[in-house]
Amino acid sequence: MVKRSGSPAIEHAVLVTGFEPFGGATTNPSECVARALDGRTIVGRSVVAAVLPCVFGDARRALVRAIDRVRPELVVCVGEAGGRAEISVERVAINIDDARIPDNAGAQPIDRLIVTGGPVGYWSSLPIKAIVSALDAEKIAATVSQSAGTFVCNHIFYALMHALRDRPGVRGGFVHVPYLPEQVIGRPGIPSMALARTTRALEIVIATSLATRADAVIVGGATH
Amino acid sequence: MVKRSGSPAIEHAVLVTGFEPFGGATTNPSECVARALDGRTIVGRSVVAAVLPCVFGDARRALVRAIDRVRPELVVCVGEAGGRAEISVERVAINIDDARIPDNAGAQPIDRLIVTGGPVGYWSSLPIKAIVSALDAEKIAATVSQSAGTFVCNHIFYALMHALRDRPGVRGGFVHVPYLPEQVIGRPGIPSMALARTTRALEIVIATSLATRADAVIVGGATH
Amino acid sequence: MVKRSGSPAIEHAVLVTGFEPFGGATTNPSECVARALDGRTIVGRSVVAAVLPCVFGDARRALVRAIDRVRPELVVCVGEAGGRAEISVERVAINIDDARIPDNAGAQPIDRLIVTGGPVGYWSSLPIKAIVSALDAEKIAATVSQSAGTFVCNHIFYALMHALRDRPGVRGGFVHVPYLPEQVIGRPGIPSMALARTTRALEIVIATSLATRADAVIVGGATH
Amino acid sequence: MVKRSGSPAIEHAVLVTGFEPFGGATTNPSECVARALDGRTIVGRSVVAAVLPCVFGDARRALVRAIDRVRPELVVCVGEAGGRAEISVERVAINIDDARIPDNAGAQPIDRLIVTGGPVGYWSSLPIKAIVSALDAEKIAATVSQSAGTFVCNHIFYALMHALRDRPGVRGGFVHVPYLPEQVIGRPGIPSMALARTTRALEIVIATSLATRADAVIVGGATH
Repeated sequence: MVKRSGSPAIEHAVLVTGFEPFGGATTNPSECVARALDGRTIVGRSVVAAVLPCVFGDARRALVRAIDRVRPELVVCVGEAGGRAEISVERVAINIDDARIPDNAGAQPIDRLIVTGGPVGYWSSLPIKAIVSALDAEKIAATVSQSAGTFVCNHIFYALMHALRDRPGVRGGFVHVPYLPEQVIGRPGIPSMALARTTRALEIVIATSLATRADAVIVGGATH
Repeated sequence: MVKRSGSPAIEHAVLVTGFEPFGGATTNPSECVARALDGRTIVGRSVVAAVLPCVFGDARRALVRAIDRVRPELVVCVGEAGGRAEISVERVAINIDDARIPDNAGAQPIDRLIVTGGPVGYWSSLPIKAIVSALDAEKIAATVSQSAGTFVCNHIFYALMHALRDRPGVRGGFVHVPYLPEQVIGRPGIPSMALARTTRALEIVIATSLATRADAVIVGGATH
Repeated sequence: MVKRSGSPAIEHAVLVTGFEPFGGATTNPSECVARALDGRTIVGRSVVAAVLPCVFGDARRALVRAIDRVRPELVVCVGEAGGRAEISVERVAINIDDARIPDNAGAQPIDRLIVTGGPVGYWSSLPIKAIVSALDAEKIAATVSQSAGTFVCNHIFYALMHALRDRPGVRGGFVHVPYLPEQVIGRPGIPSMALARTTRALEIVIATSLATRADAVIVGGATH
Repeated sequence: MVKRSGSPAIEHAVLVTGFEPFGGATTNPSECVARALDGRTIVGRSVVAAVLPCVFGDARRALVRAIDRVRPELVVCVGEAGGRAEISVERVAINIDDARIPDNAGAQPIDRLIVTGGPVGYWSSLPIKAIVSALDAEKIAATVSQSAGTFVCNHIFYALMHALRDRPGVRGGFVHVPYLPEQVIGRPGIPSMALARTTRALEIVIATSLATRADAVIVGGATH
């Protein structure tokens, strides 16, 4: 995990972030998967995890601090997408905070720019099609997603890509993961994915990102 | 697996059935889970598996032959419920064959009684609420289902309960299971469950059924 | 509407029932559609509406009183199926009350028989396939449903069919209808149907039932 | 309808576009609604409709020609979002063509920029929150959508906003509409909206856009 002390940067590191629980929940699969990956070695790189507060602004500052400390070559931010059945590899972050529910500090910004003067959107710099293809090959349900929403997940995704503009050679992106099975007990019809499977999926996301420079040309769009 | 030869009945056996693939698919999770459980011992009973053809009539005859050979004290028939997210413990079988698609022999009965003169419905004799409660406790998504459909799954469920009328002391029921992960690759939004998890779920179904005589009084209905 | 006074039976009447709102809602489309149909003439019969309390037991007694007063040749009970997109023509009522939420009197029966000694199920005596076919022809989304749930809707459906056992020549059944548009405002993804459309659908249900003695042989089952 | 002849620009016009059917369908609700609105007067402006081919590139050229001919002060492009239950007012267009299915000319671009050197995204210049609020007030289900997909709908939305960059004072945006009822016959669970209702919704979209300069501050985001 990222420590607050002034430890030196790790060579060839990958930073993975998750979020603390929000909206009254006691668990967030993105935190669980980040903790599960912390300290692992993937394709010769050390994975360092950070858990971000689910708070507009604070999350972003914590992310930038973690990047500055870890100096990763790759950053994968992870968030919960309750109700989705598959790993969602996000394509684009948009420059808007528009909260349907309050964040963990009680703030609920509506239609506020994340970065004044920033572009409308940033593309993920992960090889999103190659990642979905690699997950398919391991029989883990996955898709390219065209929207990361407008809550703290999109906020951190946009902030990440904005921060990486000044860090050439560092790539990054965002992945949404389903609920854990324990989150859907008593809620028929809501899909979930076991933690071991989600963790394996993120390993594949990281390994594929490290191994792939130019993304694959593979069908993966949405008609609407 | 149930052999066609005249082997003697197994003492204290549990019969688990699955179906072969249907509707053009190459896999059926119910077959996979039945094969995975075959030969295991659960609460001191031997599990014997049988794979039934997805054919009206033939499935029923194969089931009755397996019951006669194995002489189980418990029968759990399993089928695939593609699109459901959780283990569905069926409450009631109804006396109707009404096929939306042809079975594997090409037959497509419409609104035909399964048993002429048979009752409209049979209740499962499994402790359906206790089973869902036990699955909840292991964090496996489950629900009581009020309908097993009108295809070969309901056909075999009805045939099972009809057959057990003449076999006092033998209990039985039907459980629908989600798609396997490999069945939903490239189909965003469709839930699935890993085979190991589904297999563990069926172990719990069997163990709970063996351990429970009177079902628990637990909320589990549906408003519609 | 059914009056409590001792008015004489209406010749050639059709009784349509809806439910009062439940579960904290302020509207129930089934009540709205029953009121909209009240007093209309369909295929030469007068439609008489009754609004039933959403209370186990009381609903049943109110239904039987209405049947005794109106002496209809056809009874169509209507209920709300929030979340469904289409008119659901129910096939079968089952002999169980199993409430997921309390009824309007605060009762929440669990796995209790509706009629002690009654059969497990009763079929609808409406021509369910012909009805769906007629709705299709008018471009109103409809389906045969294999379960009316285990709440007050199924309770009244079962009670209706049980009561009609002693009233030869009187036919009846149950139809679930979607939310009204005003019920889904602010709830993206939840389907609804406009009242005029739902009312037209029920006219077709009634007209088709009056015109059809033997049901059509049409595909309409469910694989699970 | 937009004529190919060199008729003079209409004063104070609103251009509404729909698409021809695609993906093998014979109907497209967006074409129906555009045709239904053609020639109407809304808040003193004349509505002119154009039906665009569902072809990458051709659609865009047809749109620009229609804008040049009609010289509207407002452009609302409409597309079909099969499976959605509500009017979706799109927030943002992204600079990517990524076709899951071929367009009507057989082309299936994958991850191709719509405008080389163009920004990642363009915001709608319609008052999206005020529109949803006005639709709510008329009890028509509506939501802000964070993604118009990556097919011809998003293509035309992006092309529209790119074209309006050079046409100061002209505003525009994109609205996705549900299937028509006749498109979901025999497909249980798929929502639809009647044409009269969808047409009324688009009238409200246009009237609200004409009446509103600064958008309302209203909750309308998505958590993911």
